Amino acid sequence: PGRAMWAVWGARGAALAAAAVAVTALALAVAAWRRARPVREVLFFPSRPCCIEALLAEAAEPGAPARPCPCPLPSGDTALSRLVRRLLSARRSLDLCLFSFSCPQLARAVQLLHRRGVRVRLVTDAQYMGLHGSQIGRLRHAGIQVRHDQHTGYMHHKFAIVDRRMLITGSLNWTTQAIQSNRENVLVVEDVEYVKAFQDEFERIWEEYNPANYNFF
Amino acid sequence: PGRAMWAVWGARGAALAAAAVAVTALALAVAAWRRARPVREVLFFPSRPCCIEALLAEAAEPGAPARPCPCPLPSGDTALSRLVRRLLSARRSLDLCLFSFSCPQLARAVQLLHRRGVRVRLVTDAQYMGLHGSQIGRLRHAGIQVRHDQHTGYMHHKFAIVDRRMLITGSLNWTTQAIQSNRENVLVVEDVEYVKAFQDEFERIWEEYNPANYNFF
Repeated sequence: PGRAMWAVWGARGAALAAAAVAVTALALAVAAWRRARPVREVLFFPSRPCCIEALLAEAAEPGAPARPCPCPLPSGDTALSRLVRRLLSARRSLDLCLFSFSCPQLARAVQLLHRRGVRVRLVTDAQYMGLHGSQIGRLRHAGIQVRHDQHTGYMHHKFAIVDRRMLITGSLNWTTQAIQSNRENVLVVEDVEYVKAFQDEFERIWEEYNPANYNFF
Repeated sequence: PGRAMWAVWGARGAALAAAAVAVTALALAVAAWRRARPVREVLFFPSRPCCIEALLAEAAEPGAPARPCPCPLPSGDTALSRLVRRLLSARRSLDLCLFSFSCPQLARAVQLLHRRGVRVRLVTDAQYMGLHGSQIGRLRHAGIQVRHDQHTGYMHHKFAIVDRRMLITGSLNWTTQAIQSNRENVLVVEDVEYVKAFQDEFERIWEEYNPANYNFF
Protein backbone atom coordinates (compact mmCIF):
# COMPACT_ATOMS: atom_id res chain seq x y z
CA PRO A 1 0.00 0.00 0.00
CA GLY A 2 2.97 2.32 0.73
CA ARG A 3 4.06 2.04 -2.86
CA ALA A 4 0.51 2.54 -4.15
CA MET A 5 0.14 5.67 -1.98
CA TRP A 6 3.45 6.97 -3.33
CA ALA A 7 2.17 6.39 -6.85
CA VAL A 8 -1.07 8.22 -6.03
CA TRP A 9 0.80 11.20 -4.62
CA GLY A 10 3.28 11.19 -7.49
CA ALA A 11 0.49 11.20 -10.04
CA ARG A 12 -1.35 13.87 -8.05
CA GLY A 13 1.80 16.03 -8.04
CA ALA A 14 2.14 15.60 -11.78
CA ALA A 15 -1.51 16.55 -12.21
CA LEU A 16 -1.02 19.69 -10.09
CA ALA A 17 2.13 20.68 -11.99
CA ALA A 18 0.41 20.16 -15.33
CA ALA A 19 -2.58 22.18 -14.13
CA ALA A 20 -0.26 25.03 -13.08
CA VAL A 21 1.37 24.99 -16.52
CA ALA A 22 -2.08 24.98 -18.12
CA VAL A 23 -3.21 28.01 -16.11
CA THR A 24 -0.01 29.94 -16.91
CA ALA A 25 -0.23 29.09 -20.59
CA LEU A 26 -3.89 30.10 -20.71
CA ALA A 27 -3.05 33.42 -19.04
CA LEU A 28 -0.30 33.97 -21.63
CA ALA A 29 -2.69 33.12 -24.46
CA VAL A 30 -5.30 35.57 -23.14
CA ALA A 31 -2.67 38.30 -22.67
CA ALA A 32 -1.31 37.78 -26.19
CA TRP A 33 -4.82 37.77 -27.62
CA ARG A 34 -5.63 41.03 -25.84
CA ARG A 35 -2.40 42.62 -27.01
CA ALA A 36 -3.37 41.48 -30.49
CA ARG A 37 -6.74 43.25 -30.23
CA PRO A 38 -6.07 46.99 -30.29
CA VAL A 39 -8.36 49.24 -32.32
CA ARG A 40 -7.58 48.85 -36.03
CA GLU A 41 -9.87 50.80 -38.29
CA VAL A 42 -9.61 52.18 -41.81
CA LEU A 43 -11.75 55.06 -43.03
CA PHE A 44 -12.06 55.74 -46.74
CA PHE A 45 -13.10 59.04 -48.21
CA PRO A 46 -14.93 60.80 -49.84
CA SER A 47 -17.36 60.68 -46.95
CA ARG A 48 -21.08 60.83 -47.53
CA PRO A 49 -22.27 64.26 -46.38
CA CYS A 50 -23.47 64.18 -42.79
CA CYS A 51 -24.41 66.43 -39.89
CA ILE A 52 -22.13 66.16 -36.86
CA GLU A 53 -24.03 68.66 -34.67
CA ALA A 54 -25.40 65.90 -32.44
CA LEU A 55 -21.89 64.50 -31.91
CA LEU A 56 -20.51 67.93 -30.99
CA ALA A 57 -23.45 68.73 -28.69
CA GLU A 58 -23.12 65.41 -26.87
CA ALA A 59 -19.38 66.00 -26.42
CA ALA A 60 -19.95 69.55 -25.16
CA GLU A 61 -22.65 68.55 -22.67
CA PRO A 62 -22.69 64.81 -22.07
CA GLY A 63 -26.16 63.58 -21.26
CA ALA A 64 -27.92 66.82 -22.20
CA PRO A 65 -31.17 66.26 -24.09
CA ALA A 66 -30.52 66.19 -27.84
CA ARG A 67 -31.78 69.19 -29.77
CA PRO A 68 -32.53 68.23 -33.36
CA CYS A 69 -30.40 70.12 -35.91
CA PRO A 70 -32.41 72.08 -38.49
CA CYS A 71 -29.99 71.20 -41.32
CA PRO A 72 -31.21 68.74 -43.95
CA LEU A 73 -28.16 66.42 -43.74
CA PRO A 74 -28.49 62.91 -42.29
CA SER A 75 -26.54 62.28 -39.07
CA GLY A 76 -25.63 58.72 -39.94
CA ASP A 77 -22.49 56.64 -39.67
CA THR A 78 -19.96 58.03 -42.18
CA ALA A 79 -16.19 58.27 -42.51
CA LEU A 80 -16.36 61.87 -41.26
CA SER A 81 -18.54 61.06 -38.25
CA ARG A 82 -16.23 58.19 -37.33
CA LEU A 83 -13.20 60.47 -37.55
CA VAL A 84 -14.93 63.08 -35.36
CA ARG A 85 -15.93 60.42 -32.80
CA ARG A 86 -12.33 59.21 -32.51
CA LEU A 87 -11.09 62.77 -31.98
CA LEU A 88 -13.77 63.54 -29.41
CA SER A 89 -12.73 60.50 -27.39
CA ALA A 90 -9.66 62.50 -26.21
CA ARG A 91 -9.56 62.98 -22.44
CA ARG A 92 -6.07 64.33 -21.75
CA SER A 93 -4.17 65.29 -24.89
CA LEU A 94 -4.48 65.79 -28.63
CA ASP A 95 -1.33 66.24 -30.71
CA LEU A 96 -1.99 67.41 -34.26
CA CYS A 97 0.49 67.50 -37.12
CA LEU A 98 -1.41 68.78 -40.14
CA PHE A 99 -0.20 70.10 -43.48
CA SER A 100 -3.47 71.85 -44.15
CA PHE A 101 -6.41 72.48 -41.83
CA SER A 102 -9.38 74.34 -43.28
CA CYS A 103 -12.39 72.14 -42.40
CA PRO A 104 -14.60 74.15 -39.99
CA GLN A 105 -16.30 71.05 -38.58
CA LEU A 106 -13.00 69.48 -37.51
CA ALA A 107 -11.83 72.84 -36.14
CA ARG A 108 -14.95 73.00 -33.98
CA ALA A 109 -14.25 69.52 -32.62
CA VAL A 110 -10.67 70.53 -31.73
CA GLN A 111 -11.83 73.79 -30.13
CA LEU A 112 -14.38 71.87 -28.07
CA LEU A 113 -11.68 69.53 -26.75
CA HIS A 114 -9.53 72.54 -25.86
CA ARG A 115 -12.44 74.08 -23.92
CA ARG A 116 -12.98 70.76 -22.16
CA GLY A 117 -9.42 70.94 -20.80
CA VAL A 118 -7.72 68.56 -23.21
CA ARG A 119 -4.14 69.71 -23.91
CA VAL A 120 -4.09 70.45 -27.64
CA ARG A 121 -0.82 71.05 -29.52
CA LEU A 122 -0.89 71.78 -33.24
CA VAL A 123 1.97 71.69 -35.75
CA THR A 124 1.29 72.94 -39.26
CA ASP A 125 2.88 74.10 -42.48
CA ALA A 126 3.93 77.75 -42.66
CA GLN A 127 3.05 78.12 -46.32
CA TYR A 128 -0.43 76.66 -45.97
CA MET A 129 -1.59 78.09 -42.67
CA GLY A 130 -2.17 81.55 -44.17
CA LEU A 131 -4.26 80.36 -47.11
CA HIS A 132 -7.89 81.36 -47.47
CA GLY A 133 -10.14 79.26 -45.25
CA SER A 134 -7.36 78.05 -42.96
CA GLN A 135 -8.64 77.38 -39.43
CA ILE A 136 -5.25 77.96 -37.81
CA GLY A 137 -5.87 81.63 -36.96
CA ARG A 138 -9.18 80.78 -35.32
CA LEU A 139 -7.63 78.00 -33.24
CA ARG A 140 -4.73 80.24 -32.17
CA HIS A 141 -7.27 82.87 -31.23
CA ALA A 142 -9.04 80.32 -29.04
CA GLY A 143 -5.79 79.85 -27.12
CA ILE A 144 -4.51 76.67 -28.74
CA GLN A 145 -0.73 76.35 -29.07
CA VAL A 146 0.35 76.31 -32.71
CA ARG A 147 3.85 75.85 -34.14
CA HIS A 148 4.95 75.75 -37.75
CA ASP A 149 7.99 74.98 -39.88
CA GLN A 150 10.21 77.60 -41.43
CA HIS A 151 11.56 75.57 -44.32
CA THR A 152 11.02 75.53 -48.03
CA GLY A 153 9.98 71.87 -47.87
CA TYR A 154 6.44 71.09 -46.72
CA MET A 155 5.42 69.89 -43.27
CA HIS A 156 3.30 67.34 -45.09
CA HIS A 157 2.23 65.02 -42.25
CA LYS A 158 -1.49 64.55 -41.62
CA PHE A 159 -1.78 62.84 -38.27
CA ALA A 160 -3.35 63.16 -34.84
CA ILE A 161 -2.51 61.36 -31.62
CA VAL A 162 -5.27 61.01 -29.02
CA ASP A 163 -4.17 60.63 -25.37
CA ARG A 164 -0.72 59.42 -26.55
CA ARG A 165 -2.50 56.13 -27.24
CA MET A 166 -4.36 56.28 -30.53
CA LEU A 167 -2.83 57.35 -33.84
CA ILE A 168 -5.01 58.72 -36.65
CA THR A 169 -3.02 59.07 -39.87
CA GLY A 170 -3.33 58.82 -43.63
CA SER A 171 -3.54 60.77 -46.85
CA LEU A 172 -6.35 63.09 -45.71
CA ASN A 173 -5.69 66.77 -45.30
CA TRP A 174 -8.25 68.30 -42.97
CA THR A 175 -10.07 70.23 -45.68
CA THR A 176 -13.71 70.07 -46.70
CA GLN A 177 -12.67 69.44 -50.31
CA ALA A 178 -10.63 66.39 -49.30
CA ILE A 179 -13.38 65.00 -47.05
CA GLN A 180 -16.18 65.46 -49.55
CA SER A 181 -14.51 65.03 -52.94
CA ASN A 182 -11.22 63.12 -52.80
CA ARG A 183 -10.28 59.47 -52.62
CA GLU A 184 -8.49 59.38 -49.26
CA ASN A 185 -7.60 56.99 -46.45
CA VAL A 186 -7.26 57.34 -42.70
CA LEU A 187 -5.94 54.63 -40.41
CA VAL A 188 -6.90 54.44 -36.74
CA VAL A 189 -4.11 52.62 -34.93
CA GLU A 190 -3.43 51.58 -31.35
CA ASP A 191 -0.47 49.29 -32.01
CA VAL A 192 2.22 50.65 -29.79
CA GLU A 193 5.05 50.40 -32.35
CA TYR A 194 3.31 52.90 -34.62
CA VAL A 195 1.96 55.18 -31.90
CA LYS A 196 5.36 55.50 -30.24
CA ALA A 197 7.16 56.26 -33.52
CA PHE A 198 4.68 59.02 -34.36
CA GLN A 199 4.65 60.43 -30.81
CA ASP A 200 8.46 60.64 -30.91
CA GLU A 201 8.31 62.34 -34.33
CA PHE A 202 5.75 64.79 -32.94
CA GLU A 203 7.96 65.69 -29.96
CA ARG A 204 10.98 66.13 -32.27
CA ILE A 205 9.02 68.48 -34.55
CA TRP A 206 7.43 70.32 -31.62
CA GLU A 207 10.89 71.12 -30.24
CA GLU A 208 12.40 71.92 -33.63
CA TYR A 209 9.55 74.35 -34.38
CA ASN A 210 9.84 76.11 -31.03
CA PRO A 211 9.30 79.82 -31.79
CA ALA A 212 12.51 80.56 -29.92
CA ASN A 213 14.23 78.95 -32.94
CA TYR A 214 12.38 80.93 -35.63
CA ASN A 215 14.72 83.17 -37.59
CA PHE A 216 12.75 84.34 -40.60
CA PHE A 217 10.99 87.34 -39.07
CA PRO B 1 -5.21 -2.37 -3.62
CA GLY B 2 -8.10 -2.17 -6.15
CA ARG B 3 -9.12 1.20 -4.77
CA ALA B 4 -5.55 2.43 -4.64
CA MET B 5 -5.04 1.40 -8.29
CA TRP B 6 -8.23 3.23 -9.22
CA ALA B 7 -6.94 6.33 -7.43
CA VAL B 8 -3.63 6.02 -9.31
CA TRP B 9 -5.37 5.71 -12.67
CA GLY B 10 -7.78 8.55 -11.80
CA ALA B 11 -4.92 10.86 -10.86
CA ARG B 12 -2.99 9.79 -13.98
CA GLY B 13 -6.03 10.56 -16.11
CA ALA B 14 -6.29 14.00 -14.50
CA ALA B 15 -2.58 14.59 -15.13
CA LEU B 16 -2.97 13.61 -18.79
CA ALA B 17 -6.03 15.84 -19.22
CA ALA B 18 -4.25 18.78 -17.57
CA ALA B 19 -1.20 18.17 -19.78
CA ALA B 20 -3.40 18.17 -22.88
CA VAL B 21 -4.94 21.49 -21.81
CA ALA B 22 -1.44 22.87 -21.17
CA VAL B 23 -0.21 21.85 -24.63
CA THR B 24 -3.29 23.35 -26.32
CA ALA B 25 -2.99 26.59 -24.36
CA LEU B 26 0.72 26.86 -25.14
CA ALA B 27 0.00 26.31 -28.84
CA LEU B 28 -2.63 29.07 -28.66
CA ALA B 29 -0.17 31.40 -26.90
CA VAL B 30 2.50 30.77 -29.54
CA ALA B 31 -0.01 31.28 -32.37
CA ALA B 32 -1.26 34.54 -30.84
CA TRP B 33 2.31 35.72 -30.30
CA ARG B 34 3.19 34.98 -33.92
CA ARG B 35 0.06 36.67 -35.17
CA ALA B 36 1.11 39.66 -33.05
CA ARG B 37 4.53 39.82 -34.78
CA PRO B 38 3.95 40.99 -38.36
CA VAL B 39 6.26 43.60 -39.91
CA ARG B 40 5.50 47.03 -38.42
CA GLU B 41 7.82 49.77 -39.59
CA VAL B 42 7.57 53.54 -39.84
CA LEU B 43 9.73 55.57 -42.22
CA PHE B 44 10.06 59.30 -41.73
CA PHE B 45 11.15 61.72 -44.42
CA PRO B 46 12.99 63.80 -45.60
CA SER B 47 15.40 60.99 -46.36
CA ARG B 48 19.13 61.57 -46.33
CA PRO B 49 20.33 61.50 -49.94
CA CYS B 50 21.51 58.05 -50.95
CA CYS B 51 22.44 55.98 -53.95
CA ILE B 52 20.14 53.01 -54.65
CA GLU B 53 22.05 51.68 -57.68
CA ALA B 54 23.39 48.72 -55.72
CA LEU B 55 19.86 47.80 -54.57
CA LEU B 56 18.50 47.98 -58.11
CA ALA B 57 21.45 46.03 -59.55
CA GLU B 58 21.09 43.27 -56.96
CA ALA B 59 17.34 43.06 -57.66
CA ALA B 60 17.93 42.93 -61.43
CA GLU B 61 20.60 40.25 -61.25
CA PRO B 62 20.62 38.53 -57.86
CA GLY B 63 24.09 37.34 -56.95
CA ALA B 64 25.86 39.22 -59.76
CA PRO B 65 29.15 40.80 -58.70
CA ALA B 66 28.51 44.35 -57.43
CA ARG B 67 29.79 47.10 -59.68
CA PRO B 68 30.55 50.22 -57.66
CA CYS B 69 28.43 53.23 -58.67
CA PRO B 70 30.46 56.26 -59.77
CA CYS B 71 28.05 58.72 -58.08
CA PRO B 72 29.28 60.48 -54.95
CA LEU B 73 26.23 59.60 -52.78
CA PRO B 74 26.56 57.15 -49.88
CA SER B 75 24.57 53.91 -50.22
CA GLY B 76 23.64 53.68 -46.58
CA ASP B 77 20.46 52.81 -44.71
CA THR B 78 17.97 55.63 -45.29
CA ALA B 79 14.18 56.03 -45.42
CA LEU B 80 14.36 55.92 -49.23
CA SER B 81 16.56 52.81 -49.36
CA ARG B 82 14.22 51.06 -46.93
CA LEU B 83 11.19 51.98 -49.02
CA VAL B 84 12.92 50.68 -52.17
CA ARG B 85 13.92 47.45 -50.41
CA ARG B 86 10.30 46.81 -49.37
CA LEU B 87 9.08 47.40 -52.92
CA LEU B 88 11.76 45.18 -54.43
CA SER B 89 10.69 42.34 -52.14
CA ALA B 90 7.63 41.84 -54.40
CA ARG B 91 7.52 38.40 -56.01
CA ARG B 92 4.03 38.15 -57.51
CA SER B 93 2.14 41.45 -57.48
CA LEU B 94 2.47 45.15 -56.82
CA ASP B 95 -0.66 47.29 -56.62
CA LEU B 96 0.03 51.02 -56.66
CA CYS B 97 -2.45 53.78 -55.90
CA LEU B 98 -0.53 57.06 -56.20
CA PHE B 99 -1.73 60.63 -56.45
CA SER B 100 1.56 61.80 -57.90
CA PHE B 101 4.49 59.77 -59.19
CA SER B 102 7.48 61.70 -60.51
CA CYS B 103 10.46 60.17 -58.68
CA PRO B 104 12.67 58.47 -61.33
CA GLN B 105 14.35 56.18 -58.78
CA LEU B 106 11.04 54.69 -57.63
CA ALA B 107 9.89 54.42 -61.26
CA ARG B 108 13.01 52.39 -62.05
CA ALA B 109 12.26 50.05 -59.14
CA VAL B 110 8.69 49.53 -60.39
CA GLN B 111 9.86 48.98 -63.97
CA LEU B 112 12.40 46.44 -62.77
CA LEU B 113 9.68 44.48 -60.95
CA HIS B 114 7.53 44.54 -64.09
CA ARG B 115 10.46 43.16 -66.15
CA ARG B 116 10.98 40.47 -63.51
CA GLY B 117 7.40 39.25 -64.10
CA VAL B 118 5.70 40.83 -61.10
CA ARG B 119 2.14 41.84 -61.99
CA VAL B 120 2.11 45.63 -61.56
CA ARG B 121 -1.15 47.62 -61.57
CA LEU B 122 -1.07 51.38 -61.16
CA VAL B 123 -3.90 53.77 -60.31
CA THR B 124 -3.21 57.48 -60.44
CA ASP B 125 -4.78 60.91 -60.58
CA ALA B 126 -5.82 62.19 -64.01
CA GLN B 127 -4.93 65.80 -63.25
CA TYR B 128 -1.46 65.00 -61.95
CA MET B 129 -0.30 62.29 -64.32
CA GLY B 130 0.32 64.75 -67.15
CA LEU B 131 2.40 67.19 -65.12
CA HIS B 132 6.03 67.81 -65.96
CA GLY B 133 8.27 65.07 -64.59
CA SER B 134 5.48 62.53 -64.15
CA GLN B 135 6.74 58.97 -64.56
CA ILE B 136 3.35 57.61 -65.63
CA GLY B 137 4.01 57.92 -69.37
CA ARG B 138 7.30 56.07 -69.07
CA LEU B 139 5.71 53.25 -67.06
CA ARG B 140 2.84 52.92 -69.52
CA HIS B 141 5.39 52.82 -72.31
CA ALA B 142 7.12 49.95 -70.53
CA GLY B 143 3.86 48.01 -70.68
CA ILE B 144 2.57 48.58 -67.16
CA GLN B 145 -1.22 48.80 -66.79
CA VAL B 146 -2.29 52.27 -65.63
CA ARG B 147 -5.78 53.49 -64.77
CA HIS B 148 -6.86 56.91 -63.59
CA ASP B 149 -9.89 58.72 -62.22
CA GLN B 150 -12.10 60.98 -64.26
CA HIS B 151 -13.44 63.14 -61.44
CA THR B 152 -12.88 66.66 -60.28
CA GLY B 153 -11.86 65.38 -56.83
CA TYR B 154 -8.33 64.06 -56.44
CA MET B 155 -7.34 60.40 -56.33
CA HIS B 156 -5.22 61.35 -53.34
CA HIS B 157 -4.18 57.93 -51.99
CA LYS B 158 -0.47 57.17 -51.72
CA PHE B 159 -0.20 53.47 -51.10
CA ALA B 160 1.36 50.28 -52.44
CA ILE B 161 0.49 46.67 -51.70
CA VAL B 162 3.24 44.07 -52.15
CA ASP B 163 2.13 40.50 -52.90
CA ARG B 164 -1.33 41.25 -51.38
CA ARG B 165 0.44 40.90 -48.04
CA MET B 166 2.32 44.08 -47.18
CA LEU B 167 0.80 47.56 -47.20
CA ILE B 168 3.00 50.63 -47.67
CA THR B 169 1.03 53.83 -47.02
CA GLY B 170 1.34 57.33 -45.62
CA SER B 171 1.59 61.00 -46.52
CA LEU B 172 4.41 60.59 -49.05
CA ASN B 173 3.77 61.33 -52.70
CA TRP B 174 6.32 59.57 -54.87
CA THR B 175 8.16 62.72 -55.87
CA THR B 176 11.80 63.62 -55.40
CA GLN B 177 10.77 66.88 -53.70
CA ALA B 178 8.71 65.00 -51.09
CA ILE B 179 11.44 62.41 -50.47
CA GLN B 180 14.27 64.92 -50.14
CA SER B 181 12.60 68.02 -48.67
CA ASN B 182 9.30 67.32 -46.92
CA ARG B 183 8.34 66.05 -43.50
CA GLU B 184 6.53 62.84 -44.44
CA ASN B 185 5.62 59.45 -43.02
CA VAL B 186 5.26 55.98 -44.49
CA LEU B 187 3.92 52.97 -42.61
CA VAL B 188 4.86 49.42 -43.54
CA VAL B 189 2.04 47.16 -42.37
CA GLU B 190 1.35 43.45 -42.47
CA ASP B 191 -1.63 43.38 -40.09
CA VAL B 192 -4.31 41.69 -42.09
CA GLU B 193 -7.13 44.07 -41.09
CA TYR B 194 -5.37 46.99 -42.77
CA VAL B 195 -4.02 45.09 -45.75
CA LYS B 196 -7.42 43.62 -46.57
CA ALA B 197 -9.20 46.99 -46.30
CA PHE B 198 -6.70 48.62 -48.67
CA GLN B 199 -6.68 45.66 -51.08
CA ASP B 200 -10.48 45.83 -51.28
CA GLU B 201 -10.31 49.61 -51.86
CA PHE B 202 -7.74 49.02 -54.59
CA GLU B 203 -9.96 46.47 -56.37
CA ARG B 204 -12.97 48.82 -56.13
CA ILE B 205 -10.98 51.69 -57.64
CA TRP B 206 -9.40 49.46 -60.28
CA GLU B 207 -12.85 48.40 -61.48
CA GLU B 208 -14.35 51.88 -61.23
CA TYR B 209 -11.48 53.32 -63.29
CA ASN B 210 -11.77 50.64 -65.97
CA PRO B 211 -11.20 52.46 -69.28
CA ALA B 212 -14.44 50.93 -70.55
CA ASN B 213 -16.15 53.31 -68.11
CA TYR B 214 -14.31 56.46 -69.20
CA ASN B 215 -16.62 59.00 -70.76
CA PHE B 216 -14.62 62.21 -70.99
CA PHE B 217 -12.87 61.66 -74.32
